[in-house]
Amino acid sequence: MIIVMSKSASTDDVDAVTTRLKAEGFQVHLSQGVERTIIGVIGERTEEVMRLGAMQAVEQVVPVRRPYKLVSRDFHPENTVVRVGPVEFGTEKAVIIAGPCAVESREQVMESAAAVQRMGIPVLRGGAYKPRTSPYSFQGMAVEGLRILAEARDRYGLMVVTEAVDHESLRNVAEWADIVQIGARNMQNFELLKAVGQTGKPVLLKRGIAATIDEWLMAAEYIAAHGNPNIILCERGIRTYEQKTRNTLDLSAIPVIKQLCHLPIIIDPSHSTGQWNWVAPMARAGIAAGADGLIIEAHPNPQEALSDGPQSLNLPHLAELVTSLSAVAQAVGRTI
Amino acid sequence: MIIVMSKSASTDDVDAVTTRLKAEGFQVHLSQGVERTIIGVIGERTEEVMRLGAMQAVEQVVPVRRPYKLVSRDFHPENTVVRVGPVEFGTEKAVIIAGPCAVESREQVMESAAAVQRMGIPVLRGGAYKPRTSPYSFQGMAVEGLRILAEARDRYGLMVVTEAVDHESLRNVAEWADIVQIGARNMQNFELLKAVGQTGKPVLLKRGIAATIDEWLMAAEYIAAHGNPNIILCERGIRTYEQKTRNTLDLSAIPVIKQLCHLPIIIDPSHSTGQWNWVAPMARAGIAAGADGLIIEAHPNPQEALSDGPQSLNLPHLAELVTSLSAVAQAVGRTI
Amino acid sequence: MIIVMSKSASTDDVDAVTTRLKAEGFQVHLSQGVERTIIGVIGERTEEVMRLGAMQAVEQVVPVRRPYKLVSRDFHPENTVVRVGPVEFGTEKAVIIAGPCAVESREQVMESAAAVQRMGIPVLRGGAYKPRTSPYSFQGMAVEGLRILAEARDRYGLMVVTEAVDHESLRNVAEWADIVQIGARNMQNFELLKAVGQTGKPVLLKRGIAATIDEWLMAAEYIAAHGNPNIILCERGIRTYEQKTRNTLDLSAIPVIKQLCHLPIIIDPSHSTGQWNWVAPMARAGIAAGADGLIIEAHPNPQEALSDGPQSLNLPHLAELVTSLSAVAQAVGRTI
Amino acid sequence: MIIVMSKSASTDDVDAVTTRLKAEGFQVHLSQGVERTIIGVIGERTEEVMRLGAMQAVEQVVPVRRPYKLVSRDFHPENTVVRVGPVEFGTEKAVIIAGPCAVESREQVMESAAAVQRMGIPVLRGGAYKPRTSPYSFQGMAVEGLRILAEARDRYGLMVVTEAVDHESLRNVAEWADIVQIGARNMQNFELLKAVGQTGKPVLLKRGIAATIDEWLMAAEYIAAHGNPNIILCERGIRTYEQKTRNTLDLSAIPVIKQLCHLPIIIDPSHSTGQWNWVAPMARAGIAAGADGLIIEAHPNPQEALSDGPQSLNLPHLAELVTSLSAVAQAVGRTI
Repeated sequence: MIIVMSKSASTDDVDAVTTRLKAEGFQVHLSQGVERTIIGVIGERTEEVMRLGAMQAVEQVVPVRRPYKLVSRDFHPENTVVRVGPVEFGTEKAVIIAGPCAVESREQVMESAAAVQRMGIPVLRGGAYKPRTSPYSFQGMAVEGLRILAEARDRYGLMVVTEAVDHESLRNVAEWADIVQIGARNMQNFELLKAVGQTGKPVLLKRGIAATIDEWLMAAEYIAAHGNPNIILCERGIRTYEQKTRNTLDLSAIPVIKQLCHLPIIIDPSHSTGQWNWVAPMARAGIAAGADGLIIEAHPNPQEALSDGPQSLNLPHLAELVTSLSAVAQAVGRTI
Repeated sequence: MIIVMSKSASTDDVDAVTTRLKAEGFQVHLSQGVERTIIGVIGERTEEVMRLGAMQAVEQVVPVRRPYKLVSRDFHPENTVVRVGPVEFGTEKAVIIAGPCAVESREQVMESAAAVQRMGIPVLRGGAYKPRTSPYSFQGMAVEGLRILAEARDRYGLMVVTEAVDHESLRNVAEWADIVQIGARNMQNFELLKAVGQTGKPVLLKRGIAATIDEWLMAAEYIAAHGNPNIILCERGIRTYEQKTRNTLDLSAIPVIKQLCHLPIIIDPSHSTGQWNWVAPMARAGIAAGADGLIIEAHPNPQEALSDGPQSLNLPHLAELVTSLSAVAQAVGRTI
Repeated sequence: MIIVMSKSASTDDVDAVTTRLKAEGFQVHLSQGVERTIIGVIGERTEEVMRLGAMQAVEQVVPVRRPYKLVSRDFHPENTVVRVGPVEFGTEKAVIIAGPCAVESREQVMESAAAVQRMGIPVLRGGAYKPRTSPYSFQGMAVEGLRILAEARDRYGLMVVTEAVDHESLRNVAEWADIVQIGARNMQNFELLKAVGQTGKPVLLKRGIAATIDEWLMAAEYIAAHGNPNIILCERGIRTYEQKTRNTLDLSAIPVIKQLCHLPIIIDPSHSTGQWNWVAPMARAGIAAGADGLIIEAHPNPQEALSDGPQSLNLPHLAELVTSLSAVAQAVGRTI
Repeated sequence: MIIVMSKSASTDDVDAVTTRLKAEGFQVHLSQGVERTIIGVIGERTEEVMRLGAMQAVEQVVPVRRPYKLVSRDFHPENTVVRVGPVEFGTEKAVIIAGPCAVESREQVMESAAAVQRMGIPVLRGGAYKPRTSPYSFQGMAVEGLRILAEARDRYGLMVVTEAVDHESLRNVAEWADIVQIGARNMQNFELLKAVGQTGKPVLLKRGIAATIDEWLMAAEYIAAHGNPNIILCERGIRTYEQKTRNTLDLSAIPVIKQLCHLPIIIDPSHSTGQWNWVAPMARAGIAAGADGLIIEAHPNPQEALSDGPQSLNLPHLAELVTSLSAVAQAVGRTI
């Protein structure tokens, strides 16, 4: 770490810092600059050093090491492959996940699952527990929804991903589904992260709506540090000043994550754009940018959807998209 | 609500929309503009109308009514006063809350509580459950921390506020403390909001780091809709591109909230600025802008704090601040 | 336009608004909702209606028509093709522009131009007038730089794009170059927009660093309204809270612009990412998302570049990128 | 400056960097950390060092010195007082500027000026050159407007501030007005900054809508470096995701600027909130936070204003505000 002393810091101020650091077991390198003194600090305990930022003579403390270890590519140079039954995330084959925003009925899920299977899509999505902005909105079918998803999985040979929102729903999701989704709103619900870490189930970890890449990786680190390395990251759009799209899809996160981290990363072009006719170009862009997969909202009848209808593809549009994705994947040396 | 048809919408498209709306029991007013047809929709069920946004001929659906009811000033014109023992939030007397970020030891809390009481501050803060970005950071003293806070309360005649982070910690906080804090990261942890709604305890609801004012009020609506009207809103800085401060304190939220909502609102100048020497001016600004109170981090020895030391006032600085706040409060017709 | 009256508006308030509107020649449709009165206003003069937002009984004025006309796809459904000598922007062939950030010397430009030509890239970029954050940074070679660019153009048969920053530099750029670039910082320099409108030269209009899509299209409308329809839009990253990348490349702007506007749009993956090894994936993503071209910074020796070295490709990396782009273009039915 | 080498950097990579730096005349301090090598670089030429960020083995270059000199408090610890006739910005007396957004007519300006003078406000504002988002909006009365402002000044003994938007308008404004305003959209119009630097006239430099504090200070540095130290900074709201207010007023910028810079800073509560009834609380908050003044939009008849009516105070509301400001100023040891 590096401590930048303020311009007005005296020799005594510098001594106070270095004495304290040495007493705490750190090695210290002084660099007397033209205007300011810089102190290089060598040692592993970041927090003790950050604390010095409270001293008046310290202008700033600059951390040099990345705060995450288990998910960092520095310590694990090869890509991690997350296995979900026969499906693998993180190989040259990009994985598509598709299905309705919410489980609304047995019929709706079966129709979606049949279509998804026909198109060669290996994973079905569908929310049974729905975190909704309004307490008056449809909150999901809960366990009944999970049962329907499980039936669809068995009938159509699909893997199933669905969201958990607290300890109780996590227990149920871990029992009935193949991948546990942690939604954007819960990305820093650390108690939930610890609990999903203990399940060992594959986790789809969405980026929080205003999470930095470092915070997102720290959320993954929570899961890994509690025993679960099976993490799939999902970029789903970040909040910016632009209001034409629901959020701003941050595709640059793909090469950044690939550089910093060994986990697979997929893209959600549905929540980020918020409008069905912008989903296909952003899905193609995601694959071209190097994503390991996509999660796409599709509904047999978007105009009747109980949530997120405007951003859902109908099934024929989904089929068209899958075809076009295959060509883009090939162009960047991958398959779908 | 208002439905704006796309410019290319045909008469049949317009008919399809109006027919569907009438069948669902809405009244409909057509307005044929120069370029587009606008459909005014009268009725209470917002979601059914929003769903039409999935139709290709519909350009946008503009909601007119606010999505919140119980917390809206439209339906409750007078200010709500939230009572916490002898302390009232929402009167002309602004309430100060102060104390350390985290409970670290019995001594640290007792020293803080004694000082706070001496300064006439009626509410003590201190975290027993700490949501930390890193899994390797100090996570709080949990129940042991709650016991220390309760002891300080009894000894110094203070009210106590502390954060709950999941169902289990909520049960403990509700038992030991006077006000349950819901932190910024959990503002849209809807299961936690429902649970805190059921406790009936006074709640300090922090604004999420990237929450819009509408989302924040909807979070309050969750708590109210589950039976708990005792809600104190807390603006604590929002995430913007500016990096000099930890977050950007959005003081304009005070007059906006006062216009839209009847609940008290307080300001956290510590987390928003992230630096102790910027806390006092922003605290004064908050009171001048009409805040109903402040929550301030203070520590007997900020350089040894286990979290948030750089933004914590030491106790003499806190005492100075309280004095200066009194003058500002008076200038805007209030007291401290 | 739609006027939403406040919930407390009286019948007299509503009458005051409608009387004024009718006196100004607007048609008015009243919609008496459950809570609020909505007034549909028919007529072309937006500003007169927006002004009513200053009345206390008016809650908000919602514009329905888009504020731009000349650049709107509503009034010009086919794509515009902008011709620059033999090069066309807006056809199925995506156009690549490449070259150094700044013109630094004759040798540097000639080496870049030769390489660019060899790779089949038809347009050379290079800044002669450099808007720099610091007054102490290299400010560009001005007319001398323009002469070097023109020599490279003649020698290698390339088109040349370079930035104008005020009236004087605009006169020079319009004389020596083929495309006038208006940079992000000048996107709302309306006097410059008017002047470039009067030149009639093809314009590359970069999106302002925090410009909404509507503001960007209004900037294009300024140029068009002053007589110049030859506008190429360029998305170059927007400012968000995320700091890992220099800016956040908003690729979703491509389908949004394609829906709203008939002008060609290209992508700048260099300024947005700020790091050379993230340029290639974002360039490929841009093409996959439907961009009509790319503008890429490349330098014979990035480590010696006087500006933006860290985000510049060296020439071998540029050549590799061009090859890979061709495959992606083909996958989405286009060519390079 | 500090160079952080990447984790995979070899000894040869480190040597290459240090050799180059020494050859360029820098002193170099090596710090071999647990994971990475850090190189402390001592010397004044920032740009040469930043350039090394293009080397693959370099992870990041961290500048330590601030990029501004002339406007930095490091080199000029006392507050600067900017004198405009008899008015001083930067003393314990906070200065109020008020008047209409745009000069619309002689009558409108005279009525405003008379009222402003009656209230003891020393500076009149009014735009003669209006940078408008739409080319179809009122663009200002230009020189005719300047003449009206000058007449009002002479008649009522006021100082006058008005905006310049390019070289030509700058010449006129510098001739007719007392303070030249550089608007938010032109904060990085560096050619205009250079020109206003050469005039020597007092400058009101608004913060760009998405400018960081460092960029804002660098814009001031441009003016100072071109010979003009008479700079008044003006915070006017920044662009964030929140849409309830027109922009987000960043009052924390006041203590931050006061720490980094010796120039006076004032607040614009009108443009930032965008709604007249939120102006007064934010004006009071600005003074409480330590602002050296305020610039407030006021209009004899906001509902007829040609621009920004909804955010303009009428004259009685302005008078009320001035009274209340006086009490707040006193509470923080200042006067109005």
